[in-house]
This record gives sequence, structure tokens and C-alpha cells, in this order.
Amino acid sequence: MMMTQTLSINGPRLIDRLDRFAQIGATAKGGVNRQALTDLDRQARQLLTELALQRGFKVFQDPIANLFIRREGRNPDLSPLLIGSHLDSQPAGGRFDGALGTLAAFEVLETLEDCGVETERPVEVVSFTNEEGCRFAPGCMGSMAFAAGSIPSAWETMRATDGALFADELSATLESLPVAAMRPLGTPVFAYLEVHIEQGPSLEKEGLPIGIVTGIQGTRWLEVIIEGQTAHAGTTALQYRHDPMQATVNALAELYRDIMPADPAARFTIGRMVLEPGAVNAIPATVRFTIDFRHPSLTTIGVMEQTIRMAIQQAAADTGCSATISQIFDMPPASFPDELLAVLDQAAQERDFATKRMLSGAFHDALFMNRVAPSAMIFVPCRDGLSHNEAEYVEQEHSIAGGNMLLASLLQLLAPTAAL
Amino acid sequence: MMMTQTLSINGPRLIDRLDRFAQIGATAKGGVNRQALTDLDRQARQLLTELALQRGFKVFQDPIANLFIRREGRNPDLSPLLIGSHLDSQPAGGRFDGALGTLAAFEVLETLEDCGVETERPVEVVSFTNEEGCRFAPGCMGSMAFAAGSIPSAWETMRATDGALFADELSATLESLPVAAMRPLGTPVFAYLEVHIEQGPSLEKEGLPIGIVTGIQGTRWLEVIIEGQTAHAGTTALQYRHDPMQATVNALAELYRDIMPADPAARFTIGRMVLEPGAVNAIPATVRFTIDFRHPSLTTIGVMEQTIRMAIQQAAADTGCSATISQIFDMPPASFPDELLAVLDQAAQERDFATKRMLSGAFHDALFMNRVAPSAMIFVPCRDGLSHNEAEYVEQEHSIAGGNMLLASLLQLLAPTAAL
Repeated sequence: MMMTQTLSINGPRLIDRLDRFAQIGATAKGGVNRQALTDLDRQARQLLTELALQRGFKVFQDPIANLFIRREGRNPDLSPLLIGSHLDSQPAGGRFDGALGTLAAFEVLETLEDCGVETERPVEVVSFTNEEGCRFAPGCMGSMAFAAGSIPSAWETMRATDGALFADELSATLESLPVAAMRPLGTPVFAYLEVHIEQGPSLEKEGLPIGIVTGIQGTRWLEVIIEGQTAHAGTTALQYRHDPMQATVNALAELYRDIMPADPAARFTIGRMVLEPGAVNAIPATVRFTIDFRHPSLTTIGVMEQTIRMAIQQAAADTGCSATISQIFDMPPASFPDELLAVLDQAAQERDFATKRMLSGAFHDALFMNRVAPSAMIFVPCRDGLSHNEAEYVEQEHSIAGGNMLLASLLQLLAPTAAL
Repeated sequence: MMMTQTLSINGPRLIDRLDRFAQIGATAKGGVNRQALTDLDRQARQLLTELALQRGFKVFQDPIANLFIRREGRNPDLSPLLIGSHLDSQPAGGRFDGALGTLAAFEVLETLEDCGVETERPVEVVSFTNEEGCRFAPGCMGSMAFAAGSIPSAWETMRATDGALFADELSATLESLPVAAMRPLGTPVFAYLEVHIEQGPSLEKEGLPIGIVTGIQGTRWLEVIIEGQTAHAGTTALQYRHDPMQATVNALAELYRDIMPADPAARFTIGRMVLEPGAVNAIPATVRFTIDFRHPSLTTIGVMEQTIRMAIQQAAADTGCSATISQIFDMPPASFPDELLAVLDQAAQERDFATKRMLSGAFHDALFMNRVAPSAMIFVPCRDGLSHNEAEYVEQEHSIAGGNMLLASLLQLLAPTAAL
């Protein structure tokens, strides 16, 4: 392998590619609506395949329609280094979430080709199926099935929010790329690297072009139903009230005060709440709400759940109400391996990128890939931390920095002296 | 006037009447849906008119369709003693709210007739239009227009929740009773007495058949909009959050703790709340909620509003959010005159009714009538404090007690020696 300290991606080509893919499903407000397994998703996959074939790369897909673009290594029997992300978007999504990671990876592949860099191992770009999970749930279907080595049978009969059958849309997607050779799920991978926008404000606020992601925090969702007794707001004295809203507020005030301020890594969010019957002049009969809480430590997530349950049960009891608390989602945390993070640190140092190590608050395909191969992520800043939003924006220099950071990491990883 | 200590209403006739009127708009669950100015409301008015004419009483209505049934006094030039309530109901209302007060008043009129009791003053039963305010808002339209002496012009173009025009429905209602002679709004009244169900639990819990209502607490409604910034629940650390739900909870926890526990006469209720965008994994951009607060003292209501505004503005500022607070309803408190309350106390004593003096938490037509004539109310217990509910129920003995208490009070009031 030829080593060069100064090998860089073709920045303008990456920016041009981002613009070109942003046209597939472009929205009036400058965003993208290219939901998983739609015709637009298929168009994006076809365009990437076309670009790959033009450069002489091989194209594969697996039964969940993960798309792989392979640049051969000197030793084709070695497991490939996998780089990539996803091409599907939210319904009112942005141009960078997923697309940047996929196109930066493809740009790295082309740069290797442009410069005639030979690698011992093959390098593959991947675009995972349905990372967003909005048309079909859950998200990360592609990487989840890849890591599990099989597709859950329940998915086949699933219907999209628009009524389409998952099995039909998956078949149509696979058939739309007859040129892609089929390979089984879960083929061995040497390591997985993913560039992604931060989807939060910290890199921008701290003026850093690159974040080295040490892991993905675990997430749990609870649904809470507090039942009291509806009664007239005017005629019911305090001692006769069983007010589920009072219970809700008392419990949440305690949790807002105790959870996040005490632990900078903890997240605690109330995003949805419904009061019934919902009349101005009636004490509610029922308050339903969700709690999204996250932490990098699985142990701490367990402790947080106990804290939350106790606060709610206590507040409900104090007001003569009853509470039902159900876990509706549970995603354990992932920690990316230290050896791989050390390689990324070294790559950043070599390229003079100011970085910080950080956790990902959102899930990504890397969470699932880390179960079957050493994985890591590279974050770039996005304007105002905005994501899942048509106004999502990444400065050109940051997109290019992400690509160069990926290239440098790849070169470190594939150097004959690499530790991994 | 013939004085008799033992004059009593015909209890079984009152119970039978309550059953008969409950059939007009009866719901499957045993309640009543007889909303104001509907065909069903007109049927109830026609039935009452028919019963009145059978007894030789005169029937009048005014331009807002308040219905009056008059038993003449020895001196027809004296202003009448007015007794009554309303016949309209909530959409999923009960059989007693309004109907009991109207039919108990009519029962008193019939009892006077049955026993040949002559009174110096005329006695009139009134059924006020649209007390409930659910098909057309506000409530208490009939008594409000009566007390003001005019109909607000804005009402004429108002449309019902079902699309009907107020002016059309009012005309249809007036025309459905051609036998009722038209009289102007706001004819002079000697005094007004109203029997009503408590719509709260205190009489039942204390085992009292009768409550003597000293006034109606004032009510204000605020609409609060707290605006923050929506962001990803996982990626946004505490220092970057502008979470309007956190602001809401912090303010409300303080207000739940400070307002009602410190003052048994205060009421503070959050009945409606909407979080936007309402996703489990997104910090809300906006929280909108209503506050219903009440107190018998107008001064205290003003202080409460200041306390509420300060707590919300402070909590919004603490979280980097902004709050907009608007008064959307304001009903000043009413105090019924001591002289009239003394007459009610005396009537209760004479009949051996255990009573307590109490405030009304809900509005009633008596609140508006008290602006133009000495007014008072007699409460009877309702099961579990339930009202505005198909399960609303009043024990037969309590309905009858309410009627006898009204009769006794009327006899006291019309006695030649009465103080009023």
C-alpha cells in the first residue's frame, strides 16, 4: 500500500454529489423527502450504483436491500473495511443526514481509485436500508438485520404509514437493481466507520470541525398513564381532588431537578402529553405522557428507570391517583472499541483537525454494526444543531473535513503497521 | 296570605316530573342531551308550558327566550318573586342539573295552587336560556341578557358547534311557543331563588341535605403559551435546551404547592395542555395550557393572577424560553345579600333541615340575577359530587328536600312580616 500523508478527497466533487442526491426527493423548502423503500429511495440507490459501475466497482445487495459498493483489495479473501451510512430520509428531512456519510464514503473510494492507492483489504461502501424508521418502524432495519444475520419474520407482514406492504416494497427495491449481485446477510466485516452530522449543537458551539464518537448512549422510552378523577374545577376543594395533572407535575418537577443537572451524560425529555377530557374547567381524569431517557451506561439507565418509577408512583399515591408505567422502547448503549478510537485520534492529529471525543445521543447503524465488527463514527457540525428538518445544513468545509477525516482514518487502519 | 308551618310539596309528583323531563333527550347511559335552543330544548319548554296552562298559570317569554310561568298575586302591580333555573343540558349531561331547580320551582307553584295559598306578590317560575354554554358560548346567556336588559349584538351572528346560526335557533325557539306572551328583557324582580345540585361532593360527604349558598366565587381563565426550541431528545445536552415543558412543570409545581394548600377557598386547575410537535424523542417547541383559577374575593383573584404570571415568567426565563399569558375569561365573584340568607336560614330551621353555608364553585344564573335583584341559591347533594356526567344522580329525598326548602323560603319571604 502506498502511504501518503497528503492524500485528500476531491472536495468539489463531494459537494456536487450532495447537491445531486438532494434533488432526489427535494422539497420546496430545500429539504429532502426520500423515505425508505419508496421509488425515490430506489432512484438514489440506482444513481449510486451507476456512479459505482462507471468507476469499475462491484455492486452487491443483501436480502434486506443493504447496498454494497466494493473496491477490491490485493487480497480479496480478507474481510472488507466497511464505510458508509444510509440514503433514506425523514419525511421532512434534510440533505445531509445519512447522505453525507454515504457520499463521503463513496468519495473516499473514488479518491483511492483516482490516486491508484492499492489496499491489502477490500474497501466497501454501504448504504443501509431504512435507518430513519419513519415509513416502516423500527429504524436501522438494514444494520439490525445485518448484525442479526436474519430478517425478523414480523417485518414481512408490516404495512407502511402509506399502506404499502413491507415485503412488497422490499422486493421492488431488490428488483430495481438487477445489476447488484445478491450476497447473504452478515458477511464478515473488518471494521465499520461512519461519517454523520452531529444532529446536535455542541461541535458548532465549540468551533470544532470533527467529533470522534466514543459510543451511542442507551435509550429507553416509558409510557406513563396517571389516572385520577375528573371533577368540576370550581366546585371541588383540594381535599376532594384526585388530580392526575398535579401528580404529573410533582413527579416531573422532581425528575427535571434531579436527573440531568446531576449527571451531564443523562438525558430526560417529555415530548408528548395528553390530558383527558381536556376541558378548561375540569380536573383531568387521565394524564398520559412519554418519557425518553438516555445514558451511556446500561447500569445507570436501570437506576434512572427506578428513580423515575418511584417518583411517579409516589406522586400518584400522594394525590390519590394510580399510575401505570410501561417500557415501550429499549435500546442498550454501545461503546466503540478504544483501539479504533485511538486510530481516529491519530488520523485527526495527522490532519490537524481539532476534535473532541463525544457520545452520540441518537441511534445510528454503527450501534448495530458494533455488535459484529469494531465500529466508530465521525461527527461533523450542523448549523444550529438542526436535523430531521428541511433547514438542516452543513458547511461545505465541514462536509469535506468529514470526508478527509474518513480517508485519513481508513489509511491509518489499512496501513500494514495498524494495531487493529 | 294563609300561613301554615306544615305546607309541603307533592314529592311523588316532583319525582315523576323529573323522570318525565329526563325522557326528553334521554341518552343510552341514563343521562340527558338536551342542549340549548335545539328541538329537544323546545320540547321541554313546550311540556312545561302545557303543564302551566293546565293549572291556569300565565306563560311569558322574553326576546332571549327566557320562559316565565306566572301565578298571579293579590297585587299584580308588585314585582314577582322569581324561582327557577334552566332546562338545557350538557351534551353528555345529567337529569338534574337545571331541571331539578326548574321543576322544583314549578312544583312549589302547583303546591301553592293545590292548597289555595294566596300571595300578595305574584310568583313566577323561570327557565333561563342556555345556562350550559356548550352549543353556544358563553353560558348563562338568558340571565346575562336579562340582567343587562339587552342582547349583545355579537351573539346574533354566532354559530353553534353544529353549524346552526344563533339568531335562527333563537327565532325558532320563540316561535315554538306562540301561546307565551312576549315581554321585554329585564322586567323588575322582587327576589330570585334557585335550587340546584351542588355539583361537588361536600354536602354528601358531610351528610347534609341542604346547602345555603352565600355567593359564587369569581373565575378567571388564562391561556399560557411557552415557547422554547425543539431539539433532539438524545443529542441535546442540558445547557443547550430551551425546554418549554421544563418551564411549564417548574412553574406549575410551585403553583400547585403554593396556591390551594395555603387558602381553602382558592381553586387552581390545569385542564388542557398541548405539546408541539408532540414526538416522543423531541424536546417540545411549544407548550400551551389553560389555567382555571377561582376565589370568592375579587382582590385575591387579582393577587393570584400576579402570583401565577410571575411564576410562569420566571420559569420561562430560567430555561431560556418565552411565555405569553392571556386572560381568556373573567367572571367576578357574587355575594348574595345577608338579609336573604337569613330568611333561608330561618326556613331551614323551621323545617329542621341540617344545613351549612357554602360558596358555589360553579357559575349559575343567580350570579347574574343578583346584579338586578336580591338572589340566593339552595344546594342539594349529588352522588359522588358528579355532574356534567350521565351518571349524575340526586336521591329522591334530597330532590324533595330541595323543593320543600324552596317552598319554606318562599313562604318566609312573602310573609307580611318578612324583613326583605
